[in-house]
Amino acid sequence: MHAIDCIFSAPGKAILHGEHAVVHGKVALAVSLNLRTFLRLQATSTSEVCINLPNINTFLSWDVTALQHLLQGATNEHRHLKELDAELVGRLRELTGIEAGSTDTRSMAVSAFLYMYLCIFAKAKALPSVSVTVWSELPTGAGLGSSAAYCVCVAAALLSAQGAVSSSPGSDGDTARWSGEELELINQWAFQGERIIHGNPSGVDNAVSTWGGILRYHAGKITPLQRVPMLRILLTNTRVPRSTKTLVAGVKDKINKFPSILNPVLESVDAVACTCEQTLMEMAKGLPTAEHYATLEELIDINQHHLNVMGVSHPSLDTLCRVTLARGLHSKLTGAGGGGCGITLLRPDSSASVVQDVIQDLKDTGYECWETSIGVPGIQLHSSHAVKEEVMNVFNSY
Amino acid sequence: MHAIDCIFSAPGKAILHGEHAVVHGKVALAVSLNLRTFLRLQATSTSEVCINLPNINTFLSWDVTALQHLLQGATNEHRHLKELDAELVGRLRELTGIEAGSTDTRSMAVSAFLYMYLCIFAKAKALPSVSVTVWSELPTGAGLGSSAAYCVCVAAALLSAQGAVSSSPGSDGDTARWSGEELELINQWAFQGERIIHGNPSGVDNAVSTWGGILRYHAGKITPLQRVPMLRILLTNTRVPRSTKTLVAGVKDKINKFPSILNPVLESVDAVACTCEQTLMEMAKGLPTAEHYATLEELIDINQHHLNVMGVSHPSLDTLCRVTLARGLHSKLTGAGGGGCGITLLRPDSSASVVQDVIQDLKDTGYECWETSIGVPGIQLHSSHAVKEEVMNVFNSY
Repeated sequence: MHAIDCIFSAPGKAILHGEHAVVHGKVALAVSLNLRTFLRLQATSTSEVCINLPNINTFLSWDVTALQHLLQGATNEHRHLKELDAELVGRLRELTGIEAGSTDTRSMAVSAFLYMYLCIFAKAKALPSVSVTVWSELPTGAGLGSSAAYCVCVAAALLSAQGAVSSSPGSDGDTARWSGEELELINQWAFQGERIIHGNPSGVDNAVSTWGGILRYHAGKITPLQRVPMLRILLTNTRVPRSTKTLVAGVKDKINKFPSILNPVLESVDAVACTCEQTLMEMAKGLPTAEHYATLEELIDINQHHLNVMGVSHPSLDTLCRVTLARGLHSKLTGAGGGGCGITLLRPDSSASVVQDVIQDLKDTGYECWETSIGVPGIQLHSSHAVKEEVMNVFNSY
Repeated sequence: MHAIDCIFSAPGKAILHGEHAVVHGKVALAVSLNLRTFLRLQATSTSEVCINLPNINTFLSWDVTALQHLLQGATNEHRHLKELDAELVGRLRELTGIEAGSTDTRSMAVSAFLYMYLCIFAKAKALPSVSVTVWSELPTGAGLGSSAAYCVCVAAALLSAQGAVSSSPGSDGDTARWSGEELELINQWAFQGERIIHGNPSGVDNAVSTWGGILRYHAGKITPLQRVPMLRILLTNTRVPRSTKTLVAGVKDKINKFPSILNPVLESVDAVACTCEQTLMEMAKGLPTAEHYATLEELIDINQHHLNVMGVSHPSLDTLCRVTLARGLHSKLTGAGGGGCGITLLRPDSSASVVQDVIQDLKDTGYECWETSIGVPGIQLHSSHAVKEEVMNVFNSY
């Protein structure tokens, strides 16, 4: 087996512009978010497959022989990347005791892992004994692509162990990345995991987590932007729960009620996303200027108003905008809205004290808040000494 | 002389929808506002023309002979309604000592009055001795059409005294209104007064103050809506001073910077105004329902967001919206924005206590606030016993 002891990480995702409008055929910009999911893969001699998910207090193991059994008699026909092998999914459910229709995080995470493990090693002589520990900085269920980051890490680790992608890819100091073809394979397997978890995902989340940077999503087509700047942001979780389905339906109702009012707003959101894309390209080409940042801020404000018009903001998000604006910073909701998360753009010269003050203000409001960045690299392989201490401490506990 | 002792009143105006967008060829709805300007005209035997403007502490009188002198030798050619008689304006300036270019409220009010007085009575054998007292509920310079309400009152009173319009028009109880033709004449003379005051006014303010109700203004064309409901509102003055010129220029700059983003917003504002017009028509046809009010509220919220996108809101207006929304009421800026005034829609069933509470909240924030209504009648002639005591007390002091 390749990859005896490796650490992988994959970013989360945020929507910079175009949430909701994308459902109606407009452009959205999905960006990688530097709240990362870390995975350590270790080869073991226990004849077991262990999975440790400390974030959700899940520590499980299966005998390799029992897992091997699941593959017997099954054809490999459906074990490709076009669709899920429904028979294998059913057998996995029996083994793990997960009922059909379960949607709890633990069941989903375990099913996705075992499915990818079995499919990726199906043609191997024997299933390998491995221990996998995954720990994430991302909150789950907050629309930040935590499941995709998880699936991308799992896919990269297993493909790397299996030898389908390099276990020592081209290195850039302490982190390594793969070729475009290898990334495509990782992405496709991660998408299988996402299908187990979400049923019918768009594929945007795993694409962002795999490729990193910024992706343009339009009418089902995902295009990574070639060169983009990394941007400092605050990511704030209002902790207000929301239903994406209900919010999407609400927008549709509003469009049906006021088509002449709402359709131009969707058009304007599309133009916001395209203008933002152009601005980011310019920033990546030359030296980003204060003018560029002013434009990004204007676009954020405009889109937040448009999202309000669509009816998907929430008093908690209005508060986020107001609190950050009081410190000169511009925010918008990201994702479904109705609560959930918002992003606040920081400038390169935003002082540490302003940032600390606004984080404190937001925490005082009852929100969770992270200083992080967007447009960051996708899936990476790390030297263990290059992984931050906090993460290594977690890994060394299991 | 007709009209020996008469009391007139004319409403202010607010923009319900379409401010700023109207500059770019979109529909605006201008509504009459029941903060009224009252004028008392009394025939006197003093051979003087007296004007009392207690709101701006102005009490002036002129000898009728001196005024008559201004008309001598001047042809009547330009003293029509197409344009101002520049020569007469110049002579008035000499008489009153008002410098060319003066824009203070007193100079403007006095010039407009004397101009209308001289032109309307130019063909009479002798100028009449009259005393005119004007008192207004409208704040001046707040974009609420106070100068137009003043000019409409002056025009109606002088035309009525001169006999050009009836001094005892068709009566509806204690108030009387004029025929369409008579109103048109009042409107045209009021527009002359507005020209003295503003140079190049749109004519919307005097039209609203004359006709009352709601006017549709589109590409320079003013159309009174036939039947409209009267709506209860709060009118709030944030007291934040602003420059209409700067705000209008700012919108233009923003359109030039982001045409693909802003043009659809203007289109959406146009649709908001048209949808509002349709909704008001429906309300006037049948019994207004809670559903109608919900739609009006949604339109108010949407337009306020669009005005924000155009960059013409202000933290003081955001506060107005937030404070009223906390009591379940919806607000938007009215007019130029950047401070200035906002309107808050009340429902027929908005309880007195909620209204009192929100007024108190707004006063606590440092704003002026009036409970009033929009879509009210235009210029009216009142029986003195039908005029509210507060106003009669003012009139009886002079």
